Amino acid sequence: MSSYHKPDEKTLQGLKDVANKLRIHSIKATCASNSGHPTSCCSAAELMSVLFFHTMRYKADDPRNQCNDRFVLSKGHAAPVLYAAWAEAGYVKESDLLNLRKIDSDLEGHPTPKLAFVDVATGSLGQGLGAASWTLSHAFFSHFFPFLTSIICLLGLMINVWFLDADAALFGVNICRNACCLSHSRRWNTYVVDGHDVEELCKAFWQAQQVKDKPTCIVAKTFKGKGLKNIEDQDNWHGKPIPKDKVDALLNDLKAQLQVPNKSLTPQLPKEDTAPADLSSILLPEPPAYKKGDKMATRRAYGVALAKLGQSSQRVVALDGDTKNSTFSETFKKAFPDRYIECFIAEQNMVGVAIGCAARDRTVAFASTFAAFLSRAYDQIRMGAISQTNVNLVGSHCGVSIGEDGPSQMALEDLAMFRAIPTCTVFYPSDAVSTERAVELSANTKGICFIRTSRPDTAVLYSPDEKFEIGVAKVVRQSDQDVVTVIGAGVTLHEALAAADILAGEGKNIRVIDPFTIKPLDAETIVSSARATGGQIITVEDHYKEGGLGEAVLSAVGGEPGIVVTRLAVEGVPRSGKPNELLDIFGISAKHIASAVRKTFAN
Amino acid sequence: MSSYHKPDEKTLQGLKDVANKLRIHSIKATCASNSGHPTSCCSAAELMSVLFFHTMRYKADDPRNQCNDRFVLSKGHAAPVLYAAWAEAGYVKESDLLNLRKIDSDLEGHPTPKLAFVDVATGSLGQGLGAASWTLSHAFFSHFFPFLTSIICLLGLMINVWFLDADAALFGVNICRNACCLSHSRRWNTYVVDGHDVEELCKAFWQAQQVKDKPTCIVAKTFKGKGLKNIEDQDNWHGKPIPKDKVDALLNDLKAQLQVPNKSLTPQLPKEDTAPADLSSILLPEPPAYKKGDKMATRRAYGVALAKLGQSSQRVVALDGDTKNSTFSETFKKAFPDRYIECFIAEQNMVGVAIGCAARDRTVAFASTFAAFLSRAYDQIRMGAISQTNVNLVGSHCGVSIGEDGPSQMALEDLAMFRAIPTCTVFYPSDAVSTERAVELSANTKGICFIRTSRPDTAVLYSPDEKFEIGVAKVVRQSDQDVVTVIGAGVTLHEALAAADILAGEGKNIRVIDPFTIKPLDAETIVSSARATGGQIITVEDHYKEGGLGEAVLSAVGGEPGIVVTRLAVEGVPRSGKPNELLDIFGISAKHIASAVRKTFAN
Repeated sequence: MSSYHKPDEKTLQGLKDVANKLRIHSIKATCASNSGHPTSCCSAAELMSVLFFHTMRYKADDPRNQCNDRFVLSKGHAAPVLYAAWAEAGYVKESDLLNLRKIDSDLEGHPTPKLAFVDVATGSLGQGLGAASWTLSHAFFSHFFPFLTSIICLLGLMINVWFLDADAALFGVNICRNACCLSHSRRWNTYVVDGHDVEELCKAFWQAQQVKDKPTCIVAKTFKGKGLKNIEDQDNWHGKPIPKDKVDALLNDLKAQLQVPNKSLTPQLPKEDTAPADLSSILLPEPPAYKKGDKMATRRAYGVALAKLGQSSQRVVALDGDTKNSTFSETFKKAFPDRYIECFIAEQNMVGVAIGCAARDRTVAFASTFAAFLSRAYDQIRMGAISQTNVNLVGSHCGVSIGEDGPSQMALEDLAMFRAIPTCTVFYPSDAVSTERAVELSANTKGICFIRTSRPDTAVLYSPDEKFEIGVAKVVRQSDQDVVTVIGAGVTLHEALAAADILAGEGKNIRVIDPFTIKPLDAETIVSSARATGGQIITVEDHYKEGGLGEAVLSAVGGEPGIVVTRLAVEGVPRSGKPNELLDIFGISAKHIASAVRKTFAN
Repeated sequence: MSSYHKPDEKTLQGLKDVANKLRIHSIKATCASNSGHPTSCCSAAELMSVLFFHTMRYKADDPRNQCNDRFVLSKGHAAPVLYAAWAEAGYVKESDLLNLRKIDSDLEGHPTPKLAFVDVATGSLGQGLGAASWTLSHAFFSHFFPFLTSIICLLGLMINVWFLDADAALFGVNICRNACCLSHSRRWNTYVVDGHDVEELCKAFWQAQQVKDKPTCIVAKTFKGKGLKNIEDQDNWHGKPIPKDKVDALLNDLKAQLQVPNKSLTPQLPKEDTAPADLSSILLPEPPAYKKGDKMATRRAYGVALAKLGQSSQRVVALDGDTKNSTFSETFKKAFPDRYIECFIAEQNMVGVAIGCAARDRTVAFASTFAAFLSRAYDQIRMGAISQTNVNLVGSHCGVSIGEDGPSQMALEDLAMFRAIPTCTVFYPSDAVSTERAVELSANTKGICFIRTSRPDTAVLYSPDEKFEIGVAKVVRQSDQDVVTVIGAGVTLHEALAAADILAGEGKNIRVIDPFTIKPLDAETIVSSARATGGQIITVEDHYKEGGLGEAVLSAVGGEPGIVVTRLAVEGVPRSGKPNELLDIFGISAKHIASAVRKTFAN
């Protein structure tokens, strides 16, 4: 191990000066915007100074360079100090800092990837650490990221650390080769330091860099509003700009402490030995290998498809929340064990880590669990859209058709959840062939992709060469005499086909549509089908009535007079029972569809 | 402190026998249902035996008796062993155990309050402990619950405890008078015991009962599948019934160990000194004290209303996630500090604790935070519906109208979230008067209630004596010549009124509706208004387009031919800026409403 050399006095003074300059910028910016969190910036000033001008290696003029060290500001409300650090580094124009939070500035209230130096949006507290472990993943999947880099995540005083009387804690996470250690090991390398002492910080970060086999947690004791007379360590200053009558005196006080007014420090440059991210398409190496009529659950087809994509590209990685033998991500794990991360029953963290994996397009990440349990990660998913992530989330065991396990395990609000996420494509494949294509499309689609898979075995509907596109529905049954358009997905598409058979026996024909994607929904096919069937649509879904397939269809036809939509959906909390019994009791079986069609005729 | 007396040999043997009987029941039940988790039951058999037949005090024939000790099975997949314990106690018929998971049995795959001995539904792991702290709350709010009782929460091998090599951990939480201790103190009283040794367990629970000033955590080391030859402590037995060819030998083996075949143990009875829950209505002591035209944010009116309700009843309690000066729950806290629980930035736990507080109607709980951060607790909310909870959740800072803080703090998917929850009433009040009435109605309404409040000050629209009902909209502007019905809520209702003024200047009249509740929505008023205005509806909402007000309106009119709905809503991830700038940029300001109305005329 190399030995530590204390930085020279000029460097230390330079770091102190930068810290005070960051304070000055943060105060001025929040005064200009008349909102924001200057005291939360001041507590982190020395941390930011040492990180950006002593510890981290990066190209200040190229924040997204693949060789740069990475920094995540988990306490996103301290955004002004981050913007100030990039101004001191030369990337942000100093005059722009005063545009903080303005409608035409990307220096928003909390950091988002509109800024090149931000990889994940923060501002919803406690989410940075999960995402920050992407480096761990990048290092773990070392084909993509073969050299040692550092990832730093600055957390505020919150969940994990609220027992401390410090104001800020710093997690400096060095990579290690065991992908599990960050999530599961308590054996962190830890230091407790004075977070306002630049020399102590230089030493602690150097020590952290020497430890390669586990992450380091540095608890930096700091004071809120540090350096601001009569404000430092006082109550009731959170989230408040400095009042006009105090600001000049405080700024003068800080300026008076500067000893090296000009820029004397420049960031260290990174080593350059990483290739840029590979952005080429990832395709199934061969078409789906099913025959029409074969019985295959879509959740099982998901595992097959993911393992096939894994053959096509080493960038494909999988995560699961201890449900791999139910979601069938284990099919991928068996084929590519070193590209699988077991996240156990910690879905929020799983989604955070997956978003981290997908950051900067280093990997194409698929994270799966029961769709019901993705509800735990809804804040992470919401923030993922703000982060411009391309993560793929796969939820199995949707709806009452899972049967005996009962309502706690049934996803019945997941379509509502994911439809309300901007950037999100919602796939709801109804057979094994379309599931394989959904996975392939998902791997190559920007934004969040959600794939809803089902537990029961259902018949293969499509031939292996059938083409699928996002936003393009399939008409799976039609005739010249159809009087109703029935739209189902997953198990209910099969119920709709069974209803069509029943009704055909009565001399009544219906048109049946498989939407394939619920968002975007193929409004054109739906509207033209409705027009061809007397304006009558029936939707049937294994989901609650709100926010799912039915309301998506209503949205598509809401501007069209003369189209009437009847919706069959689960109402009220369901229960345990056999899948077919539950489809029937909750009114979404073939019998109920047939009877809804007959009722439409009667009107 | 009294001294511990070891139970006599007959008692110990009786407890061992009960444990094996619980194993036998669990195996038989899961074989009958051909699904379930017998090995997870067997690991907890001694724990359940000692708890139910030695430690806990309860009336076996009256599980909801207010004096009973409480038990939460956080590892809900071990439901069969819970049902078996109540069968041994005499409440559940032994023959009914074989109806496990059947469509006509309340012995579901995971426990729900359809069973009188279940207070909160479990099955989504890790949620029991938050809810279990209700006793703490009940004790803390000691006017309602003046005596000492015990609350036990059995957790499986998961999040908090997965570092252990034990299979199950047991948290026995005794009450203490500091409501913060469970959530925030790490100073638990702790024991590590052999979870299969009934004598050790008797002693550990007795010790826990002696410690009154802090909760106890008992880490019980157990083996999965304990007592089942060739299955105990083996891999790949999770969630699988015992195969038919093995079951007889295993059952015979367990039966052979029974030494006291008849029921020799009965549970201890509780002390009886608690009144039943008070179920009377809680009304505002006086009408809202605002004048029409006053400016007042609905979030501020929430605090006023809650403090007023607090005067009316000691049962009203409040919780917040470290945002009390933004949600205005601090108004209640200032008035009733001993009925306020600060949950800090841990929204999942806050909702769990609130559901616990509301259990058995002991308190009327209101939990508030930014509506965006309730997304973190969506799994708890979903499970709350299955738990039949009456909890009230209040989300402030909805929509882009919060302004400069930016998208991480803006709730734009909360209506979609809450609409998709069965049992949920969704209030979206648009002025201070209706907010006070929403809070009052919420306190007296079964099921989950969600109140969406807004950050900006807006004009008071209603006089203090205006009556409000769930599912009844207000027509706030109308004439005989209205050509469009505009529906807004919160800030967008005020934008709609401003648009009406603009259009009136052009000689065009519009009808403006305040829905008050988004779920249920007043379909009758909306449909009749639409019919009176040429079938034209425009909705305008500070929410994403999916799952919110617009789709709720589409749902209400989807079965009515000839009604056309135009929807104005936020599309795409928003940004920082001034509230009015954002309303305009995202197309939901008065200007955009007026122009949508003109476009309708033009068609």
